[in-house]
Amino acid sequence: MLMKSPTQSLTEQLSARFAERIRNRLLAPGSRLPSVRQCAEQNGVSPSTVVAAYDQLLAQGLVEARKNRGFFVRENSPAADRVAGEGLGADLATESAAANWSTAHWFAMRAAGRASPGVSPVNATALIRGMFHKISDKPQPGMGVFPSEWLESTFMPAAVRKVTNSRSLQDFSLQYGEPLGDAHLRRLLAKKLSTLNVHTVPEHIITTVGATHALDIVSRTLLRPGDPVMVEEPGWAVEFARLAALGMRILPVPRRADGPDLEVMARYCEVHQPKLYVSVSVFHNPTGYCLSPGSAHRVLQLANQHNFHVVEDDTYSHIAPEHATRLTALDGLQRTIYVSGFAKILAPNWRIGYLAAPPNLVEPLLDTKLLATLTTPALLEKALALCIEQGQLRRHAERIRTRLDAARSRSVKLALQAGCTFAAEPVGLFGWVDTGVDTDALAQRMLDEGYLLAPGALFHAERKPSTLMRINFATTQEAAFWQIFQQVVAAMK
Amino acid sequence: MLMKSPTQSLTEQLSARFAERIRNRLLAPGSRLPSVRQCAEQNGVSPSTVVAAYDQLLAQGLVEARKNRGFFVRENSPAADRVAGEGLGADLATESAAANWSTAHWFAMRAAGRASPGVSPVNATALIRGMFHKISDKPQPGMGVFPSEWLESTFMPAAVRKVTNSRSLQDFSLQYGEPLGDAHLRRLLAKKLSTLNVHTVPEHIITTVGATHALDIVSRTLLRPGDPVMVEEPGWAVEFARLAALGMRILPVPRRADGPDLEVMARYCEVHQPKLYVSVSVFHNPTGYCLSPGSAHRVLQLANQHNFHVVEDDTYSHIAPEHATRLTALDGLQRTIYVSGFAKILAPNWRIGYLAAPPNLVEPLLDTKLLATLTTPALLEKALALCIEQGQLRRHAERIRTRLDAARSRSVKLALQAGCTFAAEPVGLFGWVDTGVDTDALAQRMLDEGYLLAPGALFHAERKPSTLMRINFATTQEAAFWQIFQQVVAAMK
Repeated sequence: MLMKSPTQSLTEQLSARFAERIRNRLLAPGSRLPSVRQCAEQNGVSPSTVVAAYDQLLAQGLVEARKNRGFFVRENSPAADRVAGEGLGADLATESAAANWSTAHWFAMRAAGRASPGVSPVNATALIRGMFHKISDKPQPGMGVFPSEWLESTFMPAAVRKVTNSRSLQDFSLQYGEPLGDAHLRRLLAKKLSTLNVHTVPEHIITTVGATHALDIVSRTLLRPGDPVMVEEPGWAVEFARLAALGMRILPVPRRADGPDLEVMARYCEVHQPKLYVSVSVFHNPTGYCLSPGSAHRVLQLANQHNFHVVEDDTYSHIAPEHATRLTALDGLQRTIYVSGFAKILAPNWRIGYLAAPPNLVEPLLDTKLLATLTTPALLEKALALCIEQGQLRRHAERIRTRLDAARSRSVKLALQAGCTFAAEPVGLFGWVDTGVDTDALAQRMLDEGYLLAPGALFHAERKPSTLMRINFATTQEAAFWQIFQQVVAAMK
Repeated sequence: MLMKSPTQSLTEQLSARFAERIRNRLLAPGSRLPSVRQCAEQNGVSPSTVVAAYDQLLAQGLVEARKNRGFFVRENSPAADRVAGEGLGADLATESAAANWSTAHWFAMRAAGRASPGVSPVNATALIRGMFHKISDKPQPGMGVFPSEWLESTFMPAAVRKVTNSRSLQDFSLQYGEPLGDAHLRRLLAKKLSTLNVHTVPEHIITTVGATHALDIVSRTLLRPGDPVMVEEPGWAVEFARLAALGMRILPVPRRADGPDLEVMARYCEVHQPKLYVSVSVFHNPTGYCLSPGSAHRVLQLANQHNFHVVEDDTYSHIAPEHATRLTALDGLQRTIYVSGFAKILAPNWRIGYLAAPPNLVEPLLDTKLLATLTTPALLEKALALCIEQGQLRRHAERIRTRLDAARSRSVKLALQAGCTFAAEPVGLFGWVDTGVDTDALAQRMLDEGYLLAPGALFHAERKPSTLMRINFATTQEAAFWQIFQQVVAAMK
């Protein structure tokens, strides 16, 4: 609801809000603005105020009017300076459209939600950016990480100081460093992996710029543009967008409670001969599902039979039970690659991830790392090693798990009271919640209230309307959010 | 020359040396071992010792005998665990060969020197690895950076400590951080760029994991697999290998003293419509050439006429004069992208690079950064900002330039005395030296003496024999190297 202000008219407030959202890509190029009547109702202003606001946006070149269809965010607005993006950039899009509309491009557009203009208010990039930019001071239900207060500790700064006060600071800073990553850290990681029944040696571990970089290295090494790759659906939007930008053919595999839909996988294998399967086995994002041992076994049978690799993204390992079923543990890192990182549990900005690979893939994967970034910063890897070594990180993770358990039971209760149902049993960090209304529209309305949601459509390779949304249990345990949520949902029904 | 030892026979010594070189890829899969007679002569042992050593390598599965042709390093040896690489990995190579021999693959192989088996003793990857692994305690002529002693300073550790003792350490570590990179650093970079007549704003600068990552981001954003891209030749091996691994079509443009061969460029534009031109304008690697203003102007005319982008790799800016001609300065960052980093002057392991882009490319480039690594570590960026802010880095660079000038005049004198000529005027960090003998063979022989050379063949998109090599002036100023060099060259003639 807009409020009268002495410094800014309602028209100005309304047009400023849309302009900002277009710039931050919370309204993607090609998406439709609400109708004048809708917008007037939603914001408690007169239709003439909305018309005046839309006129301002038109004058600024941010939107265009399409006859009998309404107002749309321009694809090539002057703010394209900042809006161009969508994974590829407006001028590139134009170029490509004129020349050859490549698979790569098409997939990238699709993943970014452009293929169906008008229905994509919050896209993958906007969600990523929501990780970086403050929408408001409120806890953000769409967030993919723990709030930074949860991650505070005394041991982390102490470890950094110990490393930077060491006399070896110059030594390790003034050379490129070890291609595989800090040797001491890799030894500790190998030990840590053995507690998950993933047995490897430090020489088969490669550190990376976060788990994202590890997944990027794996795709670039094992796949050529146009190669078919199986990805769980629903799944993490960034993974779809990245594979699409690399020009891969995405084969979405429905994810069930106990694992991927094996019949669909088998059919893909017969028809497309996929080269890779990307899986989050434990605390799957967004559902929280965990792979069953039987399902894991059959996935690996398929992999052997049809000769594809598997990359297992174990980003949530720190909050998961050690005994959870992992493909890499069953397979013994034969045709599986293990990926994880420390952004979720220690320090998102340190960007430390790693992979553990079959012996014959270590060198090619390392080559890709070298060609893309050369080495990774040893200072942070050495500080992380200190945090792991003295058991502090493990205890820190335990504290966070306890705190998350409490938050989850509060969130679940509130969500149920607010009329939601859970599409998957609530475990781990995320809840997969059915709201009963279109969550794309809901997300747009909740933005007005200062909340960034993660609508279900985001978690699909091909964007489609969904009544589901992903919530972060750590940021949805306050009644204030759910009250507003309920009001907005009620108004939409 | 091998020496008798009480613990290891000459045969064992010889086979161990070859085995190690195969494992470190200083002998690439497919390359031919010297003939028995040659090897015996080179090492001052009897032919029967060589035969016994080669037999041991055969038994270890590291080499294979080909009838009437000699011994070759196996493509798929058991040491393939470590040797597999060559940009793609042996099992992948086999897979691809069986299925579709993609352009990507072909280029990667070519760049890695595999296309012409038997003639590629030191390949691109080996050279990169030489940057990380100690070949011996001797100064390495093939190195691409300053020796670490040169980079030592008191201000760098002081800056790191200041940042890590700050109370904001938790704040900036526990959030993902700014997508573009640390804001304070970007402000300082914009200021620094203005001294080079490259005028931009902090919002158009993106920090990266070294200049390598910046170049990677640019290629991934502007090019689709199969796209033609012009690259200077000779040029940096890693650039060829990376573009090849991304599946790009490399169009090598001969680099002359004053700039690229414009006739060749114009022809490429007519025939292939390249999308990008990759250039090192100032202190070009490996020649040291600097772009002339006239040449720069004509390159930009071509770019405008044929609608391609230019990425200018200004890695050596810290040791170059401010007034040197840069394409980005002339063009005003319209269709040019500026790339540089701090590995060469401050701390190779910090992996801080950056790019400055035309306004309309900032968002697509940032998307690629986010999809590949999310953000970059703020701790190191903040420490770098401190080093720049107080003028310490500038004074440090001045000291290094003075030291390099002295080293260069010593190296040049010694190189001339050793019978070399300079194929390009000696300036900057590298000398482009004509040895009069095949530098691939020379490199292999000098390895026996503990020296890693950078043979001329490495700097070409398509590997071909060359009598040229690149020397690092900072590591070739001692007579000891040149004496051995002269002996080995004499023995080869």
